[in-house]
Amino acid sequence: MQAREFLMIPGPTPVPDRVLEACAKHPIGHRTPDFSRILRGAVDDLKWLGETKKDPFVITSSGTGAMEAAIANTINSGDDVLSLIVGVFGERWAKLSEAYGAKVERVISEPGQPVDLKLLAERLKKDTDKKIKAVTITHNETSTGVINDLEAIVKIVQEHGALTIVDAVTSFGATPLPIDAWGIDVLATGSQKALMLPPGLAIIFFSDRATKVSESCKSPRFYFDLRKYKKSLEADTTPATPNVSFVAGLAESLSMMKEEGTEKIFARHLRLKEALRSGVKALGLKLFVDDHFASPTITAIIPPAGISVGDIRKALKEDYRILVADGQEELKGKIFRIGHMGYVFERDILMTLAALEAVLRKLGHEVDSGKAVDAAASVIAVR
Amino acid sequence: MQAREFLMIPGPTPVPDRVLEACAKHPIGHRTPDFSRILRGAVDDLKWLGETKKDPFVITSSGTGAMEAAIANTINSGDDVLSLIVGVFGERWAKLSEAYGAKVERVISEPGQPVDLKLLAERLKKDTDKKIKAVTITHNETSTGVINDLEAIVKIVQEHGALTIVDAVTSFGATPLPIDAWGIDVLATGSQKALMLPPGLAIIFFSDRATKVSESCKSPRFYFDLRKYKKSLEADTTPATPNVSFVAGLAESLSMMKEEGTEKIFARHLRLKEALRSGVKALGLKLFVDDHFASPTITAIIPPAGISVGDIRKALKEDYRILVADGQEELKGKIFRIGHMGYVFERDILMTLAALEAVLRKLGHEVDSGKAVDAAASVIAVR
Repeated sequence: MQAREFLMIPGPTPVPDRVLEACAKHPIGHRTPDFSRILRGAVDDLKWLGETKKDPFVITSSGTGAMEAAIANTINSGDDVLSLIVGVFGERWAKLSEAYGAKVERVISEPGQPVDLKLLAERLKKDTDKKIKAVTITHNETSTGVINDLEAIVKIVQEHGALTIVDAVTSFGATPLPIDAWGIDVLATGSQKALMLPPGLAIIFFSDRATKVSESCKSPRFYFDLRKYKKSLEADTTPATPNVSFVAGLAESLSMMKEEGTEKIFARHLRLKEALRSGVKALGLKLFVDDHFASPTITAIIPPAGISVGDIRKALKEDYRILVADGQEELKGKIFRIGHMGYVFERDILMTLAALEAVLRKLGHEVDSGKAVDAAASVIAVR
Repeated sequence: MQAREFLMIPGPTPVPDRVLEACAKHPIGHRTPDFSRILRGAVDDLKWLGETKKDPFVITSSGTGAMEAAIANTINSGDDVLSLIVGVFGERWAKLSEAYGAKVERVISEPGQPVDLKLLAERLKKDTDKKIKAVTITHNETSTGVINDLEAIVKIVQEHGALTIVDAVTSFGATPLPIDAWGIDVLATGSQKALMLPPGLAIIFFSDRATKVSESCKSPRFYFDLRKYKKSLEADTTPATPNVSFVAGLAESLSMMKEEGTEKIFARHLRLKEALRSGVKALGLKLFVDDHFASPTITAIIPPAGISVGDIRKALKEDYRILVADGQEELKGKIFRIGHMGYVFERDILMTLAALEAVLRKLGHEVDSGKAVDAAASVIAVR
């Protein structure tokens, strides 16, 4: 017998039993009043979570599908797009835009750094003839564990007038994201992160302004054509056969989130981040990202000299069945990443730190017994 | 307490407990050897089912996503496409191709009729300068319950040389589909039909010839870019985070299909079709489609004079919790459709006929007691 694989990776994330059970029910017909009621409930609760008056669209796809819907419905071949890149997922926006023929200008931050607000403001100021149609932004960069100051970024872009296209895949549901108040035009997210579902659904929010742009957008699209989703959702349904099982699961996870309330959910994510970071510091390890822009959902850690990321991940998996992630692309082998979003709690952080301590000791890194757990527990105690 | 809604619609279809249980397991990490093993198993079993040597791609989307992948990876703006249309889903190929800028010529059959092979051969013969790049085909038309003679169609198209792009959403897994032997270039299907899963996965097969076309295809695509899927599948993985839960479910449903064997599965579908059609005739109702090209998975029925499709569907749902489908678009209210694919058995046909008899009598249609069930049972008895 083996312990179940414990997902401390940045997605898929742990799924609550209530959600698994809702997903596991026998599917119902998708052209029925019962399904329409479930879909409408989920859409309304997503509006609550995103503090917006506009209906989001639920797409049966990975999160990347929502990102493609964002681009395919707003960007024409030849349009100018400014991509703010702080890691792998920022680059994904750029590549996606290029796939649709956009002329992409990349503003790239050093790995582990956030978007440079001053640089952004200066660049947009120079665009006096308003050629830049859209700015793509990664709210929370999964590959480095950086959270950008989205409110400030959107404010700067709004002064220019370009559309703000936001990847909130690993932030939505974990940190405040008042879509209307901040004036975000397009926001894409996925099911398998803070929304506590398995992967398989993507969600996209479109402002009135973005909707207007989409109506005249000429890029070829069919499955991700949001005009179809809009028309269907007016009748509480979807254009193609949706993943009815996961829509039921989404409704259930959102019910759980409403029961906890956003204030408590967001505070929990902050607390877990701080507890984990304190523990990691107590282990004598370096955090990849400065406290000021450290993600509430993903923490990237630099391994001690002489111990490889691969060895740490392998030992955590083999000895404790805990999964953590490697770095991606140029950060592969340089950092390991711990995800702590959605259905993750204080005890999971203690467990992960305790296992990490044991594994590091086994691999030859000198650590003081119990210090990491102590440090984390004292963060947790002050709540 | 209410009986569970029984899906005699053309998808979603009944899902076996074994598959529901596989889908309901807690998700595992998608970048793990465990997931790679599950994905590879499912891909290999799909090859077995499609009698092909080429790996298909499993996409997290509705079936329409696979149809879009088919077009986006083969058709450039300005290409000529011949769309063989025998119903709503044939028209979907045409609209999809037009969304990608193709010049589409429609060859439309009367509702309830199959593709006219002679007409097709004549049309292709006229295309002496081989302008037609691809022919889109609906194998089994869900909106009418017609199955086309795909082998013959593909043969005719092959003589011309155009790509054959096939929607096998409601046929794959229910009827023989030897992809390599017939020489099909592109075949798209979905999870929620004969593959016995909930909706949420799409599957696409690409021949070597189609793969070559896709490599130089210029249509914008990202999520459905099969070049990415190919590269990832070489390492037994996927480009974006897949629906790991449903891939596990797919592996399980394919295991069940292997246990039964295709010979028995295909024979069962034929038997259920014949049993249902005999029963419907015994009820004095007209079948919408001639026996010669009647689908093994969907049967369309014309209601008796004076009784509406809506009343029949309502009574079946309210009195017996059995769901059957209305006609679509211009056939709405003119036919009702019974799905019988995947995890459907003899007793389900008897149940549906018995309920239909009771409902028709209640609605004022004179029927001889028991004749429908008798007729179906005698078809079943000769197996």
